[in-house]
Amino acid sequence: MPAPLPPPKLGEPYLLTPGPLTTSFGVKEAMLKDWGSWDDDFRALTREIRAGILDLIGPGAEAYDCVPIQGSGSYCVEAMLGTFVPKDGKVLVLANGAYGLRAAQTMTYLNRAHTLIDKGDYLPPRGDDVAHALAEDPAITHVLAIHCETSSGILNPIDEIAEATHAAGRKLLIDSMSAFGGVPMDLATLRYTAMVSSANKCIEGVPGFGFVIARTSELEAAKGNCHSLSLDVEAQWSTMSKTGQWRFTPPTHVVAAFREALRAHAQEGGVEGRAARYSNNRDALVTGMRALGFETLLDDRWLSPIIVTFFCPADPAFQFSQFYDLMKSKGFIIYPGKLTVVDSFRIGCIGQMDAHVMNLVVEAARDALSDMGVVSAAPPAIALNERKKLAAL
Amino acid sequence: MPAPLPPPKLGEPYLLTPGPLTTSFGVKEAMLKDWGSWDDDFRALTREIRAGILDLIGPGAEAYDCVPIQGSGSYCVEAMLGTFVPKDGKVLVLANGAYGLRAAQTMTYLNRAHTLIDKGDYLPPRGDDVAHALAEDPAITHVLAIHCETSSGILNPIDEIAEATHAAGRKLLIDSMSAFGGVPMDLATLRYTAMVSSANKCIEGVPGFGFVIARTSELEAAKGNCHSLSLDVEAQWSTMSKTGQWRFTPPTHVVAAFREALRAHAQEGGVEGRAARYSNNRDALVTGMRALGFETLLDDRWLSPIIVTFFCPADPAFQFSQFYDLMKSKGFIIYPGKLTVVDSFRIGCIGQMDAHVMNLVVEAARDALSDMGVVSAAPPAIALNERKKLAAL
Repeated sequence: MPAPLPPPKLGEPYLLTPGPLTTSFGVKEAMLKDWGSWDDDFRALTREIRAGILDLIGPGAEAYDCVPIQGSGSYCVEAMLGTFVPKDGKVLVLANGAYGLRAAQTMTYLNRAHTLIDKGDYLPPRGDDVAHALAEDPAITHVLAIHCETSSGILNPIDEIAEATHAAGRKLLIDSMSAFGGVPMDLATLRYTAMVSSANKCIEGVPGFGFVIARTSELEAAKGNCHSLSLDVEAQWSTMSKTGQWRFTPPTHVVAAFREALRAHAQEGGVEGRAARYSNNRDALVTGMRALGFETLLDDRWLSPIIVTFFCPADPAFQFSQFYDLMKSKGFIIYPGKLTVVDSFRIGCIGQMDAHVMNLVVEAARDALSDMGVVSAAPPAIALNERKKLAAL
Repeated sequence: MPAPLPPPKLGEPYLLTPGPLTTSFGVKEAMLKDWGSWDDDFRALTREIRAGILDLIGPGAEAYDCVPIQGSGSYCVEAMLGTFVPKDGKVLVLANGAYGLRAAQTMTYLNRAHTLIDKGDYLPPRGDDVAHALAEDPAITHVLAIHCETSSGILNPIDEIAEATHAAGRKLLIDSMSAFGGVPMDLATLRYTAMVSSANKCIEGVPGFGFVIARTSELEAAKGNCHSLSLDVEAQWSTMSKTGQWRFTPPTHVVAAFREALRAHAQEGGVEGRAARYSNNRDALVTGMRALGFETLLDDRWLSPIIVTFFCPADPAFQFSQFYDLMKSKGFIIYPGKLTVVDSFRIGCIGQMDAHVMNLVVEAARDALSDMGVVSAAPPAIALNERKKLAAL
């Protein structure tokens, strides 16, 4: 049984929002030094984090390279799409929430061909959907899948999607922003062309950059594809390979924090260790919240260890904004929901938190309900219709 | 006489490189807390920094707004070009170094019309050059000027360029990355459409985002121009105006550090105060280095208070890489030069340093020369030819 994780040292609330999330004090302390981005010391730091990220993808990593990209996670998704999809390529975008739709919007900005499977608020795109779409449209060259769609918290069936994509001879691009490093991913099954994630998710660094993990052969072939100088992954990779430097000023402090975060990730047992803690967090949260009468949007088999959507109680005494403020006053920042049909809210399971903290979250939720005078946390009938849709799959 | 600035608390070398640069410990300490990007506290922080930046532009600011953009300075230049130059626009790019050329390269990525005045390594683009080019080509809609071109350290004649642009009825875009906040800029003279700078230059924050200052009417008119979702300044502005939030995860810690940096900037007397310190830094550096026998590339009237290019000594005992290592061992990280014709190096004047520190830099340079056995710091004859080109202007 590991020792409980220490609370935020400066007393700020826990961030139950999957990025920005609560990081360790040690990660933040690593930002107390300035670094020259041209200097050898910083080049060594860059080398170390690139190698450290590649270490996490497991057997087969030797065919891949890691390219950090300044900016937010969405910048990295755009960089991946712009760099690996040729100007005459076509992307099948799989959407079941905000991040899939944002990828489709990115393709519209890029003015490149794409087609969208939109499953609505949360229903997962399945392998059969992909196989069918690819069989129907031979022009499709790439499939873009969201690994964990944090709009709902669903862990999409990425293995099925990868199998269908591979069987049809197309290339797979994965947005694993919120899952990479906290959910095991088998490279032999997934066989992706490229995958993106961010410093500020399951590795528990601070926000400021993300990274693309791509097959080296695909990086070599991508020269000249990109619509943007800043977001050209091939150009970043080629400069970094030659000089050890980022093309443009990197967020040096954030990179130093990320090294510290990677070391802590390894110390916790890597992806498996972190997956275990996050799964415990989710289980403690879901069990506790269900005991209070809350219901999750998703059946257990679709729940990610990243973030969980709960229905808002039907009780008219429940107001989300008041609930948010009460939770914050008790030390926990939660997230509004993104469902279109029914009111909901989300609670993240990732960051420097353990089951002990998640139990405190549940206690805070119980007290907040009581403060508001909410008698029952049960959702409205319409919410149960949503659950039936998923059960029918 | 202000008290000497304290040295880097953790003993790291001073960064005499204009971004990343040496920041105060207080600025870095502001990164020791985690922030929820959706939360009111962070929205208030974002409001404060946007208002604080606008405060720096002086009278006329009410017609402008400030839009922070995640990423490096070059991301912001690309964002400005992509957002304010319509797809059928044409840009006159003024180049006298790497950053002007990078702006032209960005236009090539964007696949939008542009024409380039390339003055070589450092010779400044003058008002007459601009007037002539604009008279010759009525298709040009915008002029892109680099304020301080840090490749050489020249402070370009931005007032002349602005006057010529305005007289010809065209729009001015300024890359004031390394100068904004440390060099006075008169809005009534410059009348720019948009201007970009970065958190990690004269405001002395840490790297991770930059900002665009643009006329509100131009922001309104820019909808649909941008080639990139991530870098769409209009979309960022419109979301931020409505919700107070960044569209995508901001580098929260870097933003918190920037607020601290802005407060220190105000306390030092704003742009005037900082310009005075940086000018003192430059004067102490240049005087001291000249006394050692070094020569600057530029005549005094073109020297910026940002960064200074020195010719490498002709003495064969001088090796830049050894000089770099010696200076680093003495606590100072300097910058290689970017001139194509003659060897040079650069020393920055911005960051948490004062004339006292610059004198120590000069002492370190003197000792490094002595360590290497360099007898004379005088440049080769070819370097003096370069100086004559500038004197002929």
